Amino acid sequence: MGKVDVILTGGSVAAMNGDFDLFTSGAVAVRDGLIEAVGPAGEIAEAYTADEVVDCSGCAVIPGLINVHTHAPMTLLRGLADDLRLDVWLMGYMMPVEREFVGSRFCWLGTQLACAEMIRSGTTCFADMYYYEEAVADAAAQAGMRAVCAETLLRFPSPDALSYDESLQRTRGFVQRWDGHPLIVAAVGPHAPYTTTADLLQDSAKLAIEFDVPLHIHVAETKQEGEDHLAEHGMSVVPWLEDHGVLDAKVIAAHCVHIDEDEMHILLRHGVGVAHNPTSNLKLASGVAPVTRMLALGLDVGIGTDGPASNNDLDMWEEMRLAALLAKGVTFDPTALPARQALAMATIGGARALHIGDLTGSLEPGKRADVAVVDLNHLHNTPHFARDPQALYAQLVYAAKGSDVRDVMCQGQWLMRGRELLTLDEQALLDEAAVVAGKIDAFLVEREESVLSKLLVIGQVAQQKMFEVQVKVLLAEPPAEDFLDRPQFVVLKPSTRRQYDTYFLFDDAYRSRLRYREDEVLGEGGEVQDVVYRLTLTTETKEREYDNSVLLSRSRFDAPVTRSMRFYREYFKPVEEVAVHKERRRCHLRYGGTDFAINLDRLMQPDLPGVFLEIKSRTWSGQDAERKAELIGELLELFGVQEQELVKQEYLELAREAGRLSE
Amino acid sequence: MGKVDVILTGGSVAAMNGDFDLFTSGAVAVRDGLIEAVGPAGEIAEAYTADEVVDCSGCAVIPGLINVHTHAPMTLLRGLADDLRLDVWLMGYMMPVEREFVGSRFCWLGTQLACAEMIRSGTTCFADMYYYEEAVADAAAQAGMRAVCAETLLRFPSPDALSYDESLQRTRGFVQRWDGHPLIVAAVGPHAPYTTTADLLQDSAKLAIEFDVPLHIHVAETKQEGEDHLAEHGMSVVPWLEDHGVLDAKVIAAHCVHIDEDEMHILLRHGVGVAHNPTSNLKLASGVAPVTRMLALGLDVGIGTDGPASNNDLDMWEEMRLAALLAKGVTFDPTALPARQALAMATIGGARALHIGDLTGSLEPGKRADVAVVDLNHLHNTPHFARDPQALYAQLVYAAKGSDVRDVMCQGQWLMRGRELLTLDEQALLDEAAVVAGKIDAFLVEREESVLSKLLVIGQVAQQKMFEVQVKVLLAEPPAEDFLDRPQFVVLKPSTRRQYDTYFLFDDAYRSRLRYREDEVLGEGGEVQDVVYRLTLTTETKEREYDNSVLLSRSRFDAPVTRSMRFYREYFKPVEEVAVHKERRRCHLRYGGTDFAINLDRLMQPDLPGVFLEIKSRTWSGQDAERKAELIGELLELFGVQEQELVKQEYLELAREAGRLSE
Repeated sequence: MGKVDVILTGGSVAAMNGDFDLFTSGAVAVRDGLIEAVGPAGEIAEAYTADEVVDCSGCAVIPGLINVHTHAPMTLLRGLADDLRLDVWLMGYMMPVEREFVGSRFCWLGTQLACAEMIRSGTTCFADMYYYEEAVADAAAQAGMRAVCAETLLRFPSPDALSYDESLQRTRGFVQRWDGHPLIVAAVGPHAPYTTTADLLQDSAKLAIEFDVPLHIHVAETKQEGEDHLAEHGMSVVPWLEDHGVLDAKVIAAHCVHIDEDEMHILLRHGVGVAHNPTSNLKLASGVAPVTRMLALGLDVGIGTDGPASNNDLDMWEEMRLAALLAKGVTFDPTALPARQALAMATIGGARALHIGDLTGSLEPGKRADVAVVDLNHLHNTPHFARDPQALYAQLVYAAKGSDVRDVMCQGQWLMRGRELLTLDEQALLDEAAVVAGKIDAFLVEREESVLSKLLVIGQVAQQKMFEVQVKVLLAEPPAEDFLDRPQFVVLKPSTRRQYDTYFLFDDAYRSRLRYREDEVLGEGGEVQDVVYRLTLTTETKEREYDNSVLLSRSRFDAPVTRSMRFYREYFKPVEEVAVHKERRRCHLRYGGTDFAINLDRLMQPDLPGVFLEIKSRTWSGQDAERKAELIGELLELFGVQEQELVKQEYLELAREAGRLSE
Repeated sequence: MGKVDVILTGGSVAAMNGDFDLFTSGAVAVRDGLIEAVGPAGEIAEAYTADEVVDCSGCAVIPGLINVHTHAPMTLLRGLADDLRLDVWLMGYMMPVEREFVGSRFCWLGTQLACAEMIRSGTTCFADMYYYEEAVADAAAQAGMRAVCAETLLRFPSPDALSYDESLQRTRGFVQRWDGHPLIVAAVGPHAPYTTTADLLQDSAKLAIEFDVPLHIHVAETKQEGEDHLAEHGMSVVPWLEDHGVLDAKVIAAHCVHIDEDEMHILLRHGVGVAHNPTSNLKLASGVAPVTRMLALGLDVGIGTDGPASNNDLDMWEEMRLAALLAKGVTFDPTALPARQALAMATIGGARALHIGDLTGSLEPGKRADVAVVDLNHLHNTPHFARDPQALYAQLVYAAKGSDVRDVMCQGQWLMRGRELLTLDEQALLDEAAVVAGKIDAFLVEREESVLSKLLVIGQVAQQKMFEVQVKVLLAEPPAEDFLDRPQFVVLKPSTRRQYDTYFLFDDAYRSRLRYREDEVLGEGGEVQDVVYRLTLTTETKEREYDNSVLLSRSRFDAPVTRSMRFYREYFKPVEEVAVHKERRRCHLRYGGTDFAINLDRLMQPDLPGVFLEIKSRTWSGQDAERKAELIGELLELFGVQEQELVKQEYLELAREAGRLSE
């Protein structure tokens, strides 16, 4: 009669081994952190005595769930921004906040919170990819969870490294330090092909191979990514990764939404593990990964929640259920991805995808004792039918919930008993998280106070605070071709442009206006020679008005356009949007020792008759502005402009008026 | 200072009214079952005193959720059969069990269980369609829930009516009895266009219009349904319903997965409410309803769980979340169906879809006090960001779970406080459900014991217990054309057929064999004149062998083929499948006062040389069999058959042998 530490007895044991052994009244014996035996309760009772016998009747006893792709510290960013397009969400919210807040303590705290949530829902192992992965590994190990922790590598500066060399160095040290740890597998995490370089990927793969650790990477998450990659490299992502030797490492490929049959075969050939993240892929509208096909080919596909900021939780039960449902929906086959296969993906399939199938993922003698006990007696999971023992899988996948998990053990250590967490101080974590959230809140509230600060946060503002004196005149007829041919003028740089302006209007205190300009520079023959994009922030109120309707415009900020108009629209959420299209003949005039810009504009949208003459000059002081306003007055006189021809409104206002009239 | 019964104060109140009022620290005052006031906590405190003040700080206070389409009593069938195709699931499992078990008590019990589950997850109102709807209404009213209860009408006998006249009569009485009830709205439930008739639908609509009650119907759930309808009626489902006046009633149309833009406009014109059931539609692989388009057009779309046997629970939180996620996934737009809109569908949108938007669905003065209080302080829903009050919606839709619902009130009555059910005895219900499940289990176990009982349960067996004496001979050459031209023979009904047989083999005690035969009757020119489908159950063991290898075959059951081969394959799950194709010349021969069937068969699959001559005769007694075996002996002699030409194996066995040889 053998002696073991713990016997879990009386539950329905789903071993999730090769034969899918199912013991309706089964037992699991655990010794020294390992599974000693699995079988019918009676047989185990006859063969072993234990220090602790846990009654699991009415429960399912399953391998602890494995979350194969997440960014655990992002629990601290959960619910910060939702229902946004990926770029707005990532560049507008996640990255600015990460730049400001992500540090070692942040990652430790976020991971501990994530561990608490995962343990509560029966997850015993997760694969992570984030910054300060040392802290993530620490936090997971302290929580008693198994984790494959990948330090992120990027081609641009990240919160924990200024360069990719520094990242590589940091990762090397990280991998070395965790070598041989009973719970933690350190890994290399080049973020994605489009955020790294070929060199960085090759170096990452070499490092992973050198230390025989997994390489965790995002692959083919969005359609755009695939198209961009093809355009840039002339081949798809997967064969490109293969060509660069990346797949020679033990790869964990997250997403694989947009891959074809050939690419699946490449992944299969290299034993790549795939992380399927159905919620995240739907929520960010990336698509639906061809999971049934990958499984049919024999690929190791696990299930991941992705980061809790894009899910918005770490609940593998919801994820399993969605994986099973979605596969049926997209294949139009209700027998696709049946419950047993879904549970297999969340357990043994996940372990294999993480290249730790020899350690965990099933209840088999010799494997680590990673176990979850799920109470099946809750209202939402009754009644029970004994007819078909296999129905247990459907009960688990389609009706059980994370909150039904009663006990959780990892490597023989109890992490939760009777829904009581044993390795984590939940309240202390929640309290500290609330403090962090308060700071992030304050940061964002300050940022969101003005259009300017929202602009600042997403990129360098190229030029801050510009003042300008300006006047506008509406001429019924264009001036004579030679109207600038005067001895007192020096004329420079004449050019013709077509300018497509979109104004975003805001109802903030400054009545801010953000102009997105597409500026086509035309050649002699009217052909487009160049296109310049420019983002300019102004305000409705003008600083001062001088004689002759000469206006001093308030501070003005220029920023380079780095994203699409759509991005800015969704990021800034203007209350109104106005389009102004015009053809502009522009030249620079030197008069009275001062530079002026002279614009002759024909408005196409709104379609207005006549020609607008604008005279503008930059200025830096009140005195300078006053002097320039006087010079503009002289120019108006020289051009013979009548008072009634002066126009104080901006084009934007003329456009809004025209819009109102046409309604 | 007004006096009210209850004030719910300090929570984030999401009114879900037209303006989407959101009070970060808000309050709801309730008097006489109605909402008296909603507003900032301070204002309510100044304006009202209450018998009971409930602290809701840290919680969201929202309208009770509305489940717009379910079959509540089917809680008792949850988990009975999953991952099957709709027909196998419905005809193979649900309907046989329903025929056997569904009665008034079953429906009452199932509904009470459903109410317990729904209340636990914050649902205060549901729309049901089932049998014995009187019992469903009773059970809901006793649980204190609001319900729109539709009595099912079918063109074939249902568990509670033998004919549709009886159903209509029953429904009329049902609607009359519940008229004016404070919680229950009785409704008319013609199941679907394909399970009713034009007359039945018109009568249903007249009844619904006469009593001004809703008409609940399944519409365009599957692609097949749409195609069949178009083929049969020459038009799509929705315009056909319009033509038949069905849409003049207050219609609740469940599913609407396969409808086009024109059909949406028809639904809109008639004020039809739509029930979107994302889980069920995925699980049964019906497809994804075009929800974003319907919402954009202004249709009232609510969210339903569908029956708990196809979901497998009644959790509106999972349903809301899936609705929001799925809409993004299928439109490739992550901003589609944002959280606020998803919550609106599950509350006010649902109320409008059920035509009770004046009663419930939002927190507005004068409406019924149907309220859920959701605790947002759980681990999986932290931290909280105050920056954007609208983030509450994302918190509720993407991270909250049914188990976070703390308190539930319907029409001012508390149904749950602190997760304690107040109107239902959960344990008593669970105990009774276990007894029912035990009986269903026993019924199915008995049925599944034999292929015969599985066959019996899905349809009438046309002919039971047939005995046959038979002999088979392999001739190298076909017999002479005139081999039956003998004075002692009377030859009847010669015909030529091509028979495509598929044998399903089972490893049960009888070694059962189920043959699915597609029997093409050929004309003079070899053209197919008719096709006959036949299902025949035999066994491997033979009753008896007579001289000359004449065999008496054991009882044999014939059943009409009413479903596809695929259905039978998935329903019976054979261990092996064997195909036999042959061309058969068949005639009936009268000899010695006895009828014989004479078959001359050429085997195409397996492709075997020679011609098989079969002589068969039905028999009813041992003595009769013996006499016929003798007559067969005489025939063999007349035909000059040699002993070595006798074949004892069936074609099935020859095919298996041929298969083994070719391997």
